[in-house]
Amino acid sequence: MPLYLHDIPLDKAKAALKEALQNADLWRVLGKENIPLDENALGRILAEPIWAKVSSPHYHASAMDGFAVRAKDTGGATLTAPLTLQIGEQAQYVDTGDPLPEEFNAVIMIEETEALDANGEITSAIREPKSIRIRASVAPWKHVRPLGEDIVATQLVLPAGHILRPADLGAIAASGHTEIPVARKPRVAILPTGTELVEIGSELKRGDILEYNSLVLAAQIKKWGGIATRFPITIDDFDLISQRVAEAARDHDLILLNAGSSAGAEDFSAGVVEKLGTLLVHGVAVRPGHPVIIGMIDNKPIIGMPGYPVSAALTGEIFVEPMIAKWLGRAPIQLDTVKATLTRKTTSSAGDDDYIRMAAGRVGEKMLAAPLNRGAGVISSLVRADGLAIMPRGTQGAEAGDMVDIHLYRTRAELEKTIFCIGSHDMTLDLIAQYLSMRNRRLVSSNVGSLGGLVALKRGEAHLAGSHLLDPETGIYNDSYIAKYLTETPVQQVMLVKREQGLILPRANPKKLKSLEDVVSSGIQFVNRQRGAGTRVLLDYHLNLLGIAPEQVLGYNDEEFTHLGVAAAVASGRADCGLGIAAAAQALELDFVPLFQERYELIIPDIYFDSPLLAPLFEVIKTKEFRETVAEMPGYEFGEE
Amino acid sequence: MPLYLHDIPLDKAKAALKEALQNADLWRVLGKENIPLDENALGRILAEPIWAKVSSPHYHASAMDGFAVRAKDTGGATLTAPLTLQIGEQAQYVDTGDPLPEEFNAVIMIEETEALDANGEITSAIREPKSIRIRASVAPWKHVRPLGEDIVATQLVLPAGHILRPADLGAIAASGHTEIPVARKPRVAILPTGTELVEIGSELKRGDILEYNSLVLAAQIKKWGGIATRFPITIDDFDLISQRVAEAARDHDLILLNAGSSAGAEDFSAGVVEKLGTLLVHGVAVRPGHPVIIGMIDNKPIIGMPGYPVSAALTGEIFVEPMIAKWLGRAPIQLDTVKATLTRKTTSSAGDDDYIRMAAGRVGEKMLAAPLNRGAGVISSLVRADGLAIMPRGTQGAEAGDMVDIHLYRTRAELEKTIFCIGSHDMTLDLIAQYLSMRNRRLVSSNVGSLGGLVALKRGEAHLAGSHLLDPETGIYNDSYIAKYLTETPVQQVMLVKREQGLILPRANPKKLKSLEDVVSSGIQFVNRQRGAGTRVLLDYHLNLLGIAPEQVLGYNDEEFTHLGVAAAVASGRADCGLGIAAAAQALELDFVPLFQERYELIIPDIYFDSPLLAPLFEVIKTKEFRETVAEMPGYEFGEE
Repeated sequence: MPLYLHDIPLDKAKAALKEALQNADLWRVLGKENIPLDENALGRILAEPIWAKVSSPHYHASAMDGFAVRAKDTGGATLTAPLTLQIGEQAQYVDTGDPLPEEFNAVIMIEETEALDANGEITSAIREPKSIRIRASVAPWKHVRPLGEDIVATQLVLPAGHILRPADLGAIAASGHTEIPVARKPRVAILPTGTELVEIGSELKRGDILEYNSLVLAAQIKKWGGIATRFPITIDDFDLISQRVAEAARDHDLILLNAGSSAGAEDFSAGVVEKLGTLLVHGVAVRPGHPVIIGMIDNKPIIGMPGYPVSAALTGEIFVEPMIAKWLGRAPIQLDTVKATLTRKTTSSAGDDDYIRMAAGRVGEKMLAAPLNRGAGVISSLVRADGLAIMPRGTQGAEAGDMVDIHLYRTRAELEKTIFCIGSHDMTLDLIAQYLSMRNRRLVSSNVGSLGGLVALKRGEAHLAGSHLLDPETGIYNDSYIAKYLTETPVQQVMLVKREQGLILPRANPKKLKSLEDVVSSGIQFVNRQRGAGTRVLLDYHLNLLGIAPEQVLGYNDEEFTHLGVAAAVASGRADCGLGIAAAAQALELDFVPLFQERYELIIPDIYFDSPLLAPLFEVIKTKEFRETVAEMPGYEFGEE
Repeated sequence: MPLYLHDIPLDKAKAALKEALQNADLWRVLGKENIPLDENALGRILAEPIWAKVSSPHYHASAMDGFAVRAKDTGGATLTAPLTLQIGEQAQYVDTGDPLPEEFNAVIMIEETEALDANGEITSAIREPKSIRIRASVAPWKHVRPLGEDIVATQLVLPAGHILRPADLGAIAASGHTEIPVARKPRVAILPTGTELVEIGSELKRGDILEYNSLVLAAQIKKWGGIATRFPITIDDFDLISQRVAEAARDHDLILLNAGSSAGAEDFSAGVVEKLGTLLVHGVAVRPGHPVIIGMIDNKPIIGMPGYPVSAALTGEIFVEPMIAKWLGRAPIQLDTVKATLTRKTTSSAGDDDYIRMAAGRVGEKMLAAPLNRGAGVISSLVRADGLAIMPRGTQGAEAGDMVDIHLYRTRAELEKTIFCIGSHDMTLDLIAQYLSMRNRRLVSSNVGSLGGLVALKRGEAHLAGSHLLDPETGIYNDSYIAKYLTETPVQQVMLVKREQGLILPRANPKKLKSLEDVVSSGIQFVNRQRGAGTRVLLDYHLNLLGIAPEQVLGYNDEEFTHLGVAAAVASGRADCGLGIAAAAQALELDFVPLFQERYELIIPDIYFDSPLLAPLFEVIKTKEFRETVAEMPGYEFGEE
C-alpha cells in the first residue's frame, strides 16, 4: 500500500516533534555524568551549576614581591623624610602569592624599598635585609589579594547549561572541584538505506550513488555534542530496514533513517515507522526538505531524513540540532544574522518555508547576498554558503535590491575578508582562491559571464570582474565595453592571462572537427555559453566573419555557464562539441582543437584597486609559484603586456 | 645573578617571535598527515587543496521519480490535446537518482502522467504501464541532474587552510576522495613550576596555590588545534627545571614554561632559557602579561608564561594562538568586534597595550560595555568577560560614554539575550541567573550598590536594578529614592524577597556581640559596605537612631562591594564584624545575629517590563522551584506584598 506525503507547515512539524518528546518525558537533559576536570572537558555542557566549594585566594595573599607591613607603621614616610622599618617586628619579606603574615595588612613592592644591613647601610641582600627604608606610606590592603578576591565559597561560578571554555576550567578548579557534572552525550544511530548506494571509495558504475549523507550527519551530530553510530548501508528491503531500525532503537537515543522518506516505489521509511511505532509526520512544507518523517519507536524519536544531501543536512539543522541542544541542556545554536542587499530576484514557493543558501560579503559600504545553486543535490552549494536566507511560508520571494536577513555560517570578520569576483570564470581564479586562502582572504567567484561582471561592477556588487569581451569592430578586448558600461565607475584593467579558446570535443575527436565551419557542416550538437559570456561574443564574432547564422548551429540556444559546464556536456554526450578553453577540455580528458588566443583581464574599480582587501590578490599574482603553475596549464600564457 | 625585566612593546615582541620562527624555518605549516574521511576529520585543517577526482553526479541522473523521455517527443501536448508515449521506445520509468537512459534527455514527474494499460485504459500500475498519457510538453534537461551539476572533476573543491565542517566532508566524498590531507597537530609541552603549587584536589594549606594554569593552557591548545602534554609540577629548582625543559624540547614543537617568568628570587625561567638556548625577550609591555619570556631552545620556541591565571591565558591568546594557527595553516582567530559605549571611566597605563575584560550587552538601543575586575589573578573575570577592550600603548584610557571596540568572546546573538542587572547584589540573583540560563537568557549582574543601580537605570545602562534603599524619614523602601533619581524614567517595583540583615561574626561569636551598640563599645574592627549600598544606608539609619557617629565605628571607611565580600573579610580575620545578610554568613560558615528585616526589590523601567527579553525572568520568579529554594535560604522570606 503506497503512502502519500501530506506536507504540514514547518512550525506544526516542529511542534509535533516537541510534543512527542514531552509525552515521552524526553524534552529535557537526558542524563548527567561526572567527568574528570581536565582539558577533555572543553566544550562539554554543565548538567548542574557549579557553586564554589572554596574561596580563591583562600587566604590573604601578597600580590607582589615585597615586604608585608602594617599600613599604620608607614604613615608619614615621604621622599625626604623616609621611615625605617625593622624586619621581623615591622616588616617581613613575601613573594607574590605568599600568605600575608597575620599581623600585617599591606605590602610594599620591593622596588620601593631600600634594603639596609645591621649598620643601617644599603645592602645588596635586598630580600634579606635587617631593616628597610621606605619613602612613601601605604594604604591598608595595598598589593594584597584578599581572601575571596576571585571567588567566594558558595557563590555561583557557572550555571547549568554552560558550554565549558578554557578559562571556565580554571575557575572550576579554583573553586575547589576535581570533577565536573556534565550532560551525557546523546547517542544517535544513522542508518543509510538504498540499493543504489555504494560506500565512499567504491569504483563508481553508472547509477551508483556515493553514500556520504551518513558522514555529513555523523559530523553534524559530533559537532552538536552527540555521539554518532554509522550503520552500514541497508538495501531497499522493508524487513531488513525494519530489523536494523529495531536494533538501533535498543541502544540509541535517536534514529536517523536516510533516505526512503518520500513516497516512491522503494521508499519504505514511513512504512517501517508505522510498523514499529507511531508515524507522526510524513512530509513537511520546507525547502530543501519536504519528504521528512517524524515518528516514535520504543519511546525513541526517529527522523526520516530526505535523500538529497542538502535536504538531509538542513533537516539535521532544523529538526535534530534543537533536540540535541535540549538533551544537552544548552540553548539551540542561533546563527548570527546580518541584513544584506539581495543581488538577484529570488523566488520562493508560497507554500513552503524556503531555506536559500547565500553567498554574502561586504562590497564597499554594502553587505550583499547572492543566492547560490538551489539544487537539493548540490552539496557544494552548502560548502560555498556563507549563510541562509529564510523565505517564510506565505511569501513568494524577494526582489533584487531588497534587504534580507542572512543567518550566517561564518563570522562577520570572515565576511570582511571576502573578495567578491564576478563575471567570466577562468580556472586561474580557482588557483588565486587557493593561494589567497593562505593570506587571510577568501575569494568568492560568481560566474555570470563577462558582461554580467561589468554590470555588477556598475551596480557596486563586486570588487572585481573577470572579462574577455572582444570588440567585434576593433578586435580589442574589454576597452569599448568598459567605456560603454562603466561610464561612472573608473576602473583599472589588469592583464591576467592569455589563453587559447577552441573546440572542446569527445576523446579522439570522432567527427574529426577542425573549425567552426566543420561544426556547422557536420550538423552535430553544439553547446553554447550564456548570453554576455566572452566566449559567446567570440563565437558570434567568428560566426559573423564566416558568414554563418546562429540558427545554423544546432544547440546554439543550449547554454552552459562555465567552461567546465561546457566540457561536462561534451563528456556526457549531451553535446558533441563546444567552444571553450583547453584547460576545461583537459580537466575531463577531452580533445581540444585550438582556434583563437584571447586576453582574460581583471577589471577592478579604482576604489578597490589600492585597498588592503585586494593587496594580497596582487601579491599572489606576482608570486613565482602562481606564474609557474599557470604556465604549466595547457593553452595558458601568463599575461605580460 | 638576578635577571631584570626589560619590557619591550607588544608589536616588537610579536615581531621577535615571528623572526625567530622564520629563521628556524618554523613560520609555516609544520607537517601534513593523511587521515580517513570520517566524522573525526571535523575541525581539522586542510594541508593541501582538494581538487575533484570525479564529477558529481558522475552521470546524468533523474531528479525525480517519473518517466525519462525525449523532449522533442512531448512537443504539442496540452491539457486538452494529450499525447501518448509508448513505454520502451518513447519513455522509461526512472526513480530519483537513476541514470537517464542514453536515448532520453528529460524526465516527466510521475504525478504529471496517466498510466495506461495495454488497452489504453488508466491503470493503477503507475510505474509499470504500457504507455503514458501526458498533458504538457517538457523542455530538454527538465528534472535531470546533469553530469557535474554539483562538482566537476578537476575543480577546486576546498582550498588548503580550510577548517573542515560537516558539509565539507560530504563534498570531499562526492569529489572522489577517501582520505584527507590535513595539517598535523602541533605538540605543546606545558610545564608548571613553583614550590608553592599544589595539584587540583589537594587539601589546601595557607600559602598553597592550586595549579590550574596548565589546565587552562592545555584546554586552549586543544581548542586551537594542538595536542597538549601537561607535565607534573616542578619545584623552583634551576637544575630540575632545566632538565624538564630539555626533556620537553625533544618531542614537542613548543614549550610553555609557567611561571617563574618574572625577576623575583625564585624566578628561574629566563635563566633556564639562557642556559639551554637563546633568550629573545624578557618582559613585554602588555597588561595583563608583562613578565613574558620568548626564547628558542634546540630550534624550538619556548614561551615563559606569567603566573597569574589571567595573564597566562591572555599570553596564550596573544602569542601562542597565532603560532598554532600558522603551524596549522589557518588564519589566526579574529574575534568579532562591536562598538560599545563605555559605562565607566577606564584608565590604562600609557606604556602598555592594555587588554581589559569587559561585560557587554544591549540595553535598549545602546550596546554597552562595562569593565570587569582587572586583577590578573581574578580568573572569574575572564569567565564573565564577554570580550576585551584593547587600550593601545600611548593612550591613557577612555572616559565614560566613549565608544570602544569590544573584541567579542561571545556571539552577538548571545549578547542580545543578555539581561543587565545592576545595583545591590542579592544571592537570589545568582539563583535567578542559574534558572535563566536554562531559558535562553543570560543574567549579568554588576554590584554597585542600590543607589548606583538607580543611577544606572537613569542613564539607560541596565534593564533592572536590585535595590533596598531605606528612607530614613519614612521607613519605606525605595519609593522616595525612585521619586528623586528616576523622575524621567517610569519604573515598576517588583518585590522580590524580604531578608534579614544582621551582624556577620566569626564562628562562635567570640566577642558575644548582640547589637550595633556592642560593636562600638567593644572597639572591634568593623567592615562596611560601599557608599550608596542599601546596607550602608541601613547602618547609617540605625547609627543615627542610636546617636552613634560614624567615626565611632572602627573600620567604617573600610569598604566591601558585596555581602560575600563582607563575610570573607570577617572569615579571614581582616575584620571582626560586618553588617550583611544571613546567607552570606552561612556561606562562609560564620555566625550571624539578626537585627533588621528589609525589602529587596527589583526596579524595572516600564520600557523593559513587558519586553520578551525579561519575560523569562518573571517566569523564573513565579516557579515553585525558585520560591522553595529561596524559602530554604536562612533569613529569607519570599516577598509577597
